[in-house]
Amino acid sequence: MNILVTNDDGIYSPGLRLLYSFVKDLGRVYVVAPETPKSASGLGITLHKPLRVSRMDLEGVTAYATSGTPSDTVYLAALEIMDKIDIVLSGINIGDNTSIQVVLSSGTIGAAMQAALLGIPAAAFSFDITDPEQFWEDPALISAARHIARALVKFVEEEGMPRGVDVISINFPRRFRPNVAVKIVPAAKVKFSQKVDRRVDPRGSTYYWLYGEMVKAEPGTDVYVVHEEGNIALTPLTFNMNVLGERPQVDTKGLEKLAKVLNSSIGAPQ
Amino acid sequence: MNILVTNDDGIYSPGLRLLYSFVKDLGRVYVVAPETPKSASGLGITLHKPLRVSRMDLEGVTAYATSGTPSDTVYLAALEIMDKIDIVLSGINIGDNTSIQVVLSSGTIGAAMQAALLGIPAAAFSFDITDPEQFWEDPALISAARHIARALVKFVEEEGMPRGVDVISINFPRRFRPNVAVKIVPAAKVKFSQKVDRRVDPRGSTYYWLYGEMVKAEPGTDVYVVHEEGNIALTPLTFNMNVLGERPQVDTKGLEKLAKVLNSSIGAPQ
Repeated sequence: MNILVTNDDGIYSPGLRLLYSFVKDLGRVYVVAPETPKSASGLGITLHKPLRVSRMDLEGVTAYATSGTPSDTVYLAALEIMDKIDIVLSGINIGDNTSIQVVLSSGTIGAAMQAALLGIPAAAFSFDITDPEQFWEDPALISAARHIARALVKFVEEEGMPRGVDVISINFPRRFRPNVAVKIVPAAKVKFSQKVDRRVDPRGSTYYWLYGEMVKAEPGTDVYVVHEEGNIALTPLTFNMNVLGERPQVDTKGLEKLAKVLNSSIGAPQ
Repeated sequence: MNILVTNDDGIYSPGLRLLYSFVKDLGRVYVVAPETPKSASGLGITLHKPLRVSRMDLEGVTAYATSGTPSDTVYLAALEIMDKIDIVLSGINIGDNTSIQVVLSSGTIGAAMQAALLGIPAAAFSFDITDPEQFWEDPALISAARHIARALVKFVEEEGMPRGVDVISINFPRRFRPNVAVKIVPAAKVKFSQKVDRRVDPRGSTYYWLYGEMVKAEPGTDVYVVHEEGNIALTPLTFNMNVLGERPQVDTKGLEKLAKVLNSSIGAPQ
C-alpha cells in the first residue's frame, strides 16, 4: 500500500512524525509536507508562483518539504513524487478541526479534500491541543490514536472508503479518559463566534486580531463529542457543495462497521 | 439595504469597481476588499498575524483595503466596518469559478461562504476571462451582468435566499451572444486535469509550476453551460459538507423563480 502522510502544520511538526510513526510499517510510506506552517490555508493552491521541493532527512526518514500549501503538496506528491497513492493521511493537526466553520478553512482537511478530488481515499487527524508540546502530555491518547490510524488504514485497504464518503475526519479530545469511544457524528455548523480585537500599535496606528469565542455545542455534533464528552469524533465529509443534483446513497452500514473496528482497536466498549 | 461588495482579486481590480457600479444606488454600499490579489486562497483566515485596514478613495468612492484574505475581509467588514450586512456580493472574479474543484479553492466564493456562515445572503460573480483588460471587450456582457446583479439584489431583498441555498454562484461566459440565458445547474466535480510542469532555473535547481488542462465537460453542469453553450450558469451551493445529518428541503420553486427574474432582466427567452 502506498501511503502519503502530509499535514498543514509543516514538515517539522511532531504531529507529522507521530502520524508517520503510527503507520510506517503498513506499506510504502511517503512524508511530503509544506516546509513552513500553513494553518488555516484551506484549499488554496499556488498558480502564480513556482514551487520548490526539497528532499530531506527527518530523523532517519526521507521526507519531502514543499514551498506550497497543503493542496499544492498533495498535487506534487501525486504527480511528481509518488507513482500511485492508495491513501492520504493528513495531520496530526495541532488543534481540533471540528465544525464546518473550521473544516472550511482547515489546511489539514484541505489536503484530504484535494486527495479525494483525485479519487484517493483520505483521512484527517486532529487533536484538541494548542501547542506541539502537548502531544507528549498524554501517552494513552497517543496510543489510542496509533491504534485508530492503523485500524483505519487496514479497513480502507480491505474495504475501501464507505460509499458516499470523500474524507474521514477524526478529532481527538485533549485527554484520554477510561472508556473513551469513537462516535460517528456530523460536524456542527459553527464552533466559534467570530470576534475582532482592535488595538493600537506603538506608532499610533490601528491593527486588528481575529479570534473566536466558543459557542455552546449541540449534542450529537463533533464539537460536543470532543469538547463536552471527551470522546473521539469520526466525521464523514463530502466535497460536494452542490445544493442540486443526485448524491450517492451513503453506506451507513460501512460507516458503522468502520466505527466498530476503530473502537475494537482501542478496546472501547461496543 | 446594506450591501458589501468584496472580492479576492484585490481592491484595484476593475471587476470590483464594476460590481460596485452595478449596485451603488440600491442601498448603502460598502466596498471592502483585500489590498493585494488573494486568488485561490479559499477560505483561509489569518490568526497568527494582526490585520490592517486602510480607508481610501477609489475613484471618488470610499473603500476599505484590508491586509487579509477574502474571509478575513468579510469578518472585518461584518464586525468592524459595517453595522449590519444584508447581502454580500463577491467579484467580479477574473476567471470563472466553475466546478467543485475550483469552488473549493476560490477566494471569491470563499468570501461568500464566510458570509453565509454568518447567516448573510451571499452571491459570487465570475467571468470566463483571464485578464482584467478583457472586461472592456464586450459591453453587452457587462450590461447583462449589471442587469443580473441588480435583479438578484432586489430578489433577495424581497424574497430572501431560496431555502436550502447558502451561496449563489453566477458564472458568465467570455462573450455575450444573442439569446444568452441564465441556467440553474450544479457544479461539475472537476474542470481541470491537474498537471505539474518541472523546470530547471538558471542556477540548475528544479522548480515546478502547477497548472490544469480542461477536461471534457458534461452536459448539465456549470462548466458545460459556460464553456460549451456560452450561457450563464447559476449554481446554488451549500457549505454543509456533512455526509450525515438532515438537510433542509431545497426551495426549487424559489430557485426557478430567481432564474426567471434574472432571465427577464436581460430579455432572455423564457
